[in-house]
Amino acid sequence: MPAPHLHPHCLGVDKDAHVALNGHRPRVVWLTGLSGAGKSTIADLVEQRLFAEGAHTAVLDGDNVRHGLCCDLGFSAADRDENIRRVAEVAKLMVDSGLIVIVAFISPFRAERDAARALFEPDEFVEVFVDVPLRVAEARDPKGLYRKARAGELRGFTGVDGVYEPPEAPEVRLDTATLGPAAAADAILDHLRANGLYVAR
Amino acid sequence: MPAPHLHPHCLGVDKDAHVALNGHRPRVVWLTGLSGAGKSTIADLVEQRLFAEGAHTAVLDGDNVRHGLCCDLGFSAADRDENIRRVAEVAKLMVDSGLIVIVAFISPFRAERDAARALFEPDEFVEVFVDVPLRVAEARDPKGLYRKARAGELRGFTGVDGVYEPPEAPEVRLDTATLGPAAAADAILDHLRANGLYVAR
Repeated sequence: MPAPHLHPHCLGVDKDAHVALNGHRPRVVWLTGLSGAGKSTIADLVEQRLFAEGAHTAVLDGDNVRHGLCCDLGFSAADRDENIRRVAEVAKLMVDSGLIVIVAFISPFRAERDAARALFEPDEFVEVFVDVPLRVAEARDPKGLYRKARAGELRGFTGVDGVYEPPEAPEVRLDTATLGPAAAADAILDHLRANGLYVAR
Repeated sequence: MPAPHLHPHCLGVDKDAHVALNGHRPRVVWLTGLSGAGKSTIADLVEQRLFAEGAHTAVLDGDNVRHGLCCDLGFSAADRDENIRRVAEVAKLMVDSGLIVIVAFISPFRAERDAARALFEPDEFVEVFVDVPLRVAEARDPKGLYRKARAGELRGFTGVDGVYEPPEAPEVRLDTATLGPAAAADAILDHLRANGLYVAR
């Protein structure tokens, strides 16, 4: 019986190859901030703008992660850490395939955001602080979560009885009490372009 | 203070948009079979061939998943199930972003492969049985794992003291005792083209 020659397992299409095909480098745009700050809306607008210029993108947020990859996780501190760890690892797999990945999670702890950043090359990880005063986020309360947290129906809810550690040196800070979602998305694109992190082909 | 209007969160770039940009539909090509059957080598060759035609691809295998996303998992039956569940969910996120995802894991159980398939649209999931007699795989033993399993250093190793449930109706079956990796990759591409599952632009 012929024994097929097994080539060494180093034939993959690497990141540079994906860059050549896509015409842009991959990135992670990591949006952190309170519930109600506008992260998911801004993430979608950033993806739309990049897509309109022919960029290859993905969005990771609660809507597509919490019901699938992380459906086994709850909202304890340990489970929220594990949720963010998995999201960061998926973002890495997507970056290795050439995508610009826009991540939108509260991700309240500096340590977990720094651990995410550590998976990537310098300049590959762009931290965006979607900053809004708690009272503004709570007044919006788009999912009714602050109300539930104040009523004691949710434990450890960020901003109510859970800590939010603001980024100390985010690449971008957006004050969404005064900046609408479209302007916030524009500000992110402006940052990427101004720093040579995204160049449309 | 102006209250920015938060648009409803339905602005994302959907799968059809990614299809229009990429020029091909996303798929999952799921390679299952014994250790040593040649799954990872074939996966890399399939990716190379697709990439050469301008397709947007990703490979998920032990090399890039086990050390990252699934580094918290061991090789108990429960952990191996969870590993495959997460891989399937990541493949789904990647398919939603338009990629052709080539998955290479032993994935020994029909139930876990069927659960993976159930995440996708009909025709989106292509199961490839990388079929090889145990004695051939064991003679190759590229990672020395069969030797360790026979020595009792690994428990539950598929084919030794762990069950492999062969697919009953895989879309593609490759006999890699007689078919080399290049021919196996060609056979997968031929299947995709013959069934209209991949059309180069």
